[in-house]
Amino acid sequence: MIDLILQNFRMHVALSEQEAALVTSAFQYRKVRKNQLLVEPPYPANTEHFIVSGCLRIYYLDSDGVAHNIAFGVEGWWLTDLQSFFTGNASKYHVEALEDSEVFIITKERWEDLLIQIPSLNIYFRKLYQNSIIAQNDRLLNMISTKADERYLRFIKKYPTLENRLPQYHIASYLGVTPVFLSKIKARLSSKH
Amino acid sequence: MIDLILQNFRMHVALSEQEAALVTSAFQYRKVRKNQLLVEPPYPANTEHFIVSGCLRIYYLDSDGVAHNIAFGVEGWWLTDLQSFFTGNASKYHVEALEDSEVFIITKERWEDLLIQIPSLNIYFRKLYQNSIIAQNDRLLNMISTKADERYLRFIKKYPTLENRLPQYHIASYLGVTPVFLSKIKARLSSKH
Repeated sequence: MIDLILQNFRMHVALSEQEAALVTSAFQYRKVRKNQLLVEPPYPANTEHFIVSGCLRIYYLDSDGVAHNIAFGVEGWWLTDLQSFFTGNASKYHVEALEDSEVFIITKERWEDLLIQIPSLNIYFRKLYQNSIIAQNDRLLNMISTKADERYLRFIKKYPTLENRLPQYHIASYLGVTPVFLSKIKARLSSKH
Repeated sequence: MIDLILQNFRMHVALSEQEAALVTSAFQYRKVRKNQLLVEPPYPANTEHFIVSGCLRIYYLDSDGVAHNIAFGVEGWWLTDLQSFFTGNASKYHVEALEDSEVFIITKERWEDLLIQIPSLNIYFRKLYQNSIIAQNDRLLNMISTKADERYLRFIKKYPTLENRLPQYHIASYLGVTPVFLSKIKARLSSKH
């Protein structure tokens, strides 16, 4: 299954057999159960996660105990609290499995080693982070300027497989609306089409 | 003045004299006047900007004509609409000089060439984008969970030189409050200290 990661890397950079072996040994395969946490404040997020199957979410728990879903991750995506992973500071987000999932885990230390051993991976991660910036940017613009109906349509476009896999309250939390308001949005949109 | 960029690169990667010459020839020095636009929708942002002096802002103009300041850039910072720069799609943001400023400009094409000619720059840009992700992340968390007083304190910490350089309405727009509300925040905070 590590082939999934290798394929991902090779979409952007060439890897020799020796380099592929380094990659393989740097990651650890792990099954995670639904509701299990991979990142939990205030511990630093010292691992990055490549999702092989299932679904993870990253969320922020505010001081009133309300969870705000920041993003979901599905097959082929990376998910961790990047801020904590990069800085080593306390994580501010929880990363949790929403379904039984399979991930490849790499520690910060192995990740840094890997980038030194295989410098071309800097190209892959530069591009990955470019995409991350684009996605975060959309998220910020969404919150500043977009009506909830539009946010819902963008959610469906961004995560085409999740609409029927997740409880509605998780989607509502991602959109920043109540579950009741989300049903109204869906009713309104389905009456339009 | 290109030395500022070279210093910046050399904080993260070693550059030979030949590579430094490539960098120097890839960037173009430019003075920009206050209010001048460097990125303007719907044109794609096909240039990235390294700020030598002055101050730029990146803002989003919503459908009601209200400008939302997303970020400021000062000496030593990069600023462009990265989403448009990476994808080549229409820019969604304006990048404007808030003061007479000096920048080094690089086109997307030259930037891509430079990364091919000097692969180690992928390390620099990977790290730059890591920092960008961290900053955007803070911005998102700010909006989700933080009270305006706290947002103001974070603004001062993030941009220590800007408080007295910018008109208050620009800061208010960054914080997502009205200028009147911003004065109240400042009065409240100064009475506390």
